[in-house]
Amino acid sequence: MTTLDSIITDSTRLYIGNAVPETYYKDTYVKNIKPVHAVALPVTHQEVQALVQFAIDKDLKILARGAGTGVAGAQVPLEGNELIIDVHLMDTITELDEETLTLTVEPGVLVGDIHTYVESKGYFYPPDPASKHSTIGGNVATNAGGLRAVKYGTTRQYVREMTVVLPSGESMTLGSKNIKDSSGYDLKDLFIGSEGTLGITTQIKLKLIPLPKASQSILLAFDTVQEATDATLAILTSGADPSGVELFERQALRYAEQNLGYPLKSQVGAAYLLMTLDGNDAADLTVRAELVEQIAKETALESHVLTEEEAAKNWALRDNILLGLTVFTEFELLDEVVPINKFAELIESTKAMQEKHGLNVLNFGHAGDGNVHTLLMKDDLSEEEWTRRRAALLKDLYQKVADLGGLPSAEHGIGIVKKEYMESMTDDINLKYMRAIKKVFDPDNRLNHGKVF
Amino acid sequence: MTTLDSIITDSTRLYIGNAVPETYYKDTYVKNIKPVHAVALPVTHQEVQALVQFAIDKDLKILARGAGTGVAGAQVPLEGNELIIDVHLMDTITELDEETLTLTVEPGVLVGDIHTYVESKGYFYPPDPASKHSTIGGNVATNAGGLRAVKYGTTRQYVREMTVVLPSGESMTLGSKNIKDSSGYDLKDLFIGSEGTLGITTQIKLKLIPLPKASQSILLAFDTVQEATDATLAILTSGADPSGVELFERQALRYAEQNLGYPLKSQVGAAYLLMTLDGNDAADLTVRAELVEQIAKETALESHVLTEEEAAKNWALRDNILLGLTVFTEFELLDEVVPINKFAELIESTKAMQEKHGLNVLNFGHAGDGNVHTLLMKDDLSEEEWTRRRAALLKDLYQKVADLGGLPSAEHGIGIVKKEYMESMTDDINLKYMRAIKKVFDPDNRLNHGKVF
Ligand SMILES: Cc1cc2nc3c(=O)[nH]c(=O)nc-3n(C[C@H](O)[C@H](O)[C@H](O)COP(=O)(O)OP(=O)(O)OC[C@H]3O[C@@H](n4cnc5c(N)ncnc54)[C@H](O)[C@@H]3O)c2cc1C
Ligand SMILES: Cc1cc2nc3c(=O)[nH]c(=O)nc-3n(C[C@H](O)[C@H](O)[C@H](O)COP(=O)(O)OP(=O)(O)OC[C@H]3O[C@@H](n4cnc5c(N)ncnc54)[C@H](O)[C@@H]3O)c2cc1C
Repeated sequence: MTTLDSIITDSTRLYIGNAVPETYYKDTYVKNIKPVHAVALPVTHQEVQALVQFAIDKDLKILARGAGTGVAGAQVPLEGNELIIDVHLMDTITELDEETLTLTVEPGVLVGDIHTYVESKGYFYPPDPASKHSTIGGNVATNAGGLRAVKYGTTRQYVREMTVVLPSGESMTLGSKNIKDSSGYDLKDLFIGSEGTLGITTQIKLKLIPLPKASQSILLAFDTVQEATDATLAILTSGADPSGVELFERQALRYAEQNLGYPLKSQVGAAYLLMTLDGNDAADLTVRAELVEQIAKETALESHVLTEEEAAKNWALRDNILLGLTVFTEFELLDEVVPINKFAELIESTKAMQEKHGLNVLNFGHAGDGNVHTLLMKDDLSEEEWTRRRAALLKDLYQKVADLGGLPSAEHGIGIVKKEYMESMTDDINLKYMRAIKKVFDPDNRLNHGKVF
Repeated sequence: MTTLDSIITDSTRLYIGNAVPETYYKDTYVKNIKPVHAVALPVTHQEVQALVQFAIDKDLKILARGAGTGVAGAQVPLEGNELIIDVHLMDTITELDEETLTLTVEPGVLVGDIHTYVESKGYFYPPDPASKHSTIGGNVATNAGGLRAVKYGTTRQYVREMTVVLPSGESMTLGSKNIKDSSGYDLKDLFIGSEGTLGITTQIKLKLIPLPKASQSILLAFDTVQEATDATLAILTSGADPSGVELFERQALRYAEQNLGYPLKSQVGAAYLLMTLDGNDAADLTVRAELVEQIAKETALESHVLTEEEAAKNWALRDNILLGLTVFTEFELLDEVVPINKFAELIESTKAMQEKHGLNVLNFGHAGDGNVHTLLMKDDLSEEEWTRRRAALLKDLYQKVADLGGLPSAEHGIGIVKKEYMESMTDDINLKYMRAIKKVFDPDNRLNHGKVF
């Protein structure tokens, strides 16, 4: 009879029953997590496969886990008695193929480490979630976005090939190093963004591009969110080709300013756009920055073309919005997305909800993608009031998102936290076929059971 | 009892039995096509749905068809008694949404008409198959590529949303106007490139981008294919960011020169690269063109930065390769793809096969994508010899493609013509799951039966 310690012979990589560390039971969004059967930390594809086979034999549910930075509760055990397969020790950068610009990595490599490595070689891996300490396997499982998606797309666009262990214990390689493919069904894109419900990724080949040689950041201040998003639409169609267009409310930034102890370059107005242009030619950047300033002239209160040092400081403030807030209050972070021309309407609508439900709401997000991160803040509400008001506000908010043609998640995934909204916002027929596909790969509903839908 | 003429009441849009025009029985690649039950030309989603329901009731197989320009035999009836649903009359450009840069079209709109329309409004739809008279529905079904994929990607990257009628008669909308999506399984990408085997597309929302304001073409001549592809790799990593990198052999171009009656700008060497740079700023184009010339200096025999007029004439020669050849001989057009660093090796290997099998072979293709269009030429071989030698050569060729990590089709699809190679070049487990997914959507195997796998 196979035992877990015959598969994972190194005892520092296996926790059974009571030995499972606390960290696997902690989550910001999901409470009352039940004990799991065990946590195993494989270091090879073969170990992952043997672990899956073990779970099949013992009829255990399986949960894949990377760095555990997920914000949808997808990496959290639901019902007890699960086997967590934590791949974060599979963290080798296996090969840089400079002829095809392909980087082969194990799933546990941190995305920040990928950036550092490839940039040192003159290459660029564009997807850039703020969570640099998340794993590439987790990024692929959630189709992670980040700050550069407006120009470069999300993780999906950079996965050339991936190898997975299926819930049946079989291995399958999806995609290839070929740039184009019209040879049968696109199974690869089905697995990307499936939040660990279809297979466990054990190897990934990523597409790289040449590292842009120059960049230029610009900060614009506006009186209203509507003016900021109008400017965004104009900039996107102007040919300025920004690689990041972040919008944040003055209110949302206040916490980061307090936390980091210095002010944003602009102190006027209620809404900001912080953007980057990148390219290979400084003269071209200047031309494109002028396009942006031309547009800004119409409505912006201030427009700052930032020096390198200023850019670093102002982007650090943007990156610190969440962390800054953590110091002051408990909050819930949303990830809704609407067509870009509805961005302002969505943000404005949260103001009315704030009044109606007596709950403070802030917004920041990827304006170039229509992706808002709305923040609901507990402040000094009682646990009970926080739960009640939040639920009521969320119902209104997701209804508004649906009315605007939006979706519950742009880049964080559905997990447990947004499952109920996903089900109400998705056509029945789409849900029916998603479930049918889940059944094709996982008839026993073993992998990340109870998540997504 | 529903009859076809109660669904399609306009008799000019319905051909039953013997009334079916010859054109539906003609194909360059598939011979001995058997008579179909009927051809219906719907003009609404509802008509498509009613036709599918009719086929279910009568237990007919269904074949979706656009412009019929497919080169894999996928749009060709296989076994008689099929209902062909030809959507080419659904050719309305429904809406241009300039705020989200989304174009809504019916599936029968020709891709060339999309280019003309959006460019007149200052926008750009990058996918650019040489067959401008193919339909957008066909382009989505084959994930069509074309000349600009190296910079802009294939049709897949430009489909935001599509509505399909499933083989069950149900309707489903896949994707949305939202730019990012991490809300459940990506069903849209499963349907793109599925060659009409999963559903019939009745509406498509396409992503547009701003029209680049300037472009510059460059022609490089080399002694060998190897030197041309080495230069391609260097250019792709240089930051010159070409939007097209076409490679062709002198031999392959000869026919176009004869056909159009004027010579290519360069008459030296055995292999050429014809490329375009596009952008918004003329100065930036000059800098990038210099990058190309810098690289070319190492090995190119000649390098020509083309005037606008020269560019038009030289690209017309490139576009005329196939048509030019048609005048001289029957041929088979392939669509194999390999990782870009194997491009030269693949082309070189066809030379040895030419000798071994006594069959003339020419090559042209999208060097920036690793996509070769190998041409096998009948010349004055007897029908019997042509069939025999071709089969033997194809076996060797696809074996070589597989050895190099390639695929049978980059942009044309598998259809009937490449089905046998697709099956031998794809892992059993991938085929197994592709078939299982086909069964989820089409348990009766009604839609485009017998194609792809
Ligand atoms: C401060 C902060 C900032 C963030 N910023 C962003 C941002 O800008 N953009 C963004 O998109 N996200 C962001 N996130 C969310 C999070 O970092 C991403 O969802 C990330 O992709 C999760 O990766 P992980 O390795 O932590 O995965 P985990 O949290 O461990 O798991 C997440 C999901 O992926 C699955 N999974 C993990 N590894 C595998 C594997 N090898 N095979 C199969 N399934 C697997 C899990 O089962 C689970 O469903 C942020 C989070 C934090 C805390
Ligand atoms: C001279 C020439 C040059 C070409 N150049 C290129 C090129 O550069 N790049 C390239 O990629 N291809 C090229 N092609 C191939 C061809 O044009 C493409 O495959 C094109 O996408 C087919 O479109 P169509 O409308 O003609 O489809 P059809 O030939 O009618 O059908 C092709 C496939 O699409 C399916 N289909 C069609 N419409 C629908 C629908 N509404 N719903 C579901 N399924 C549907 C059919 O069932 C079939 O499987 C070329 C062909 C020719 C003849």
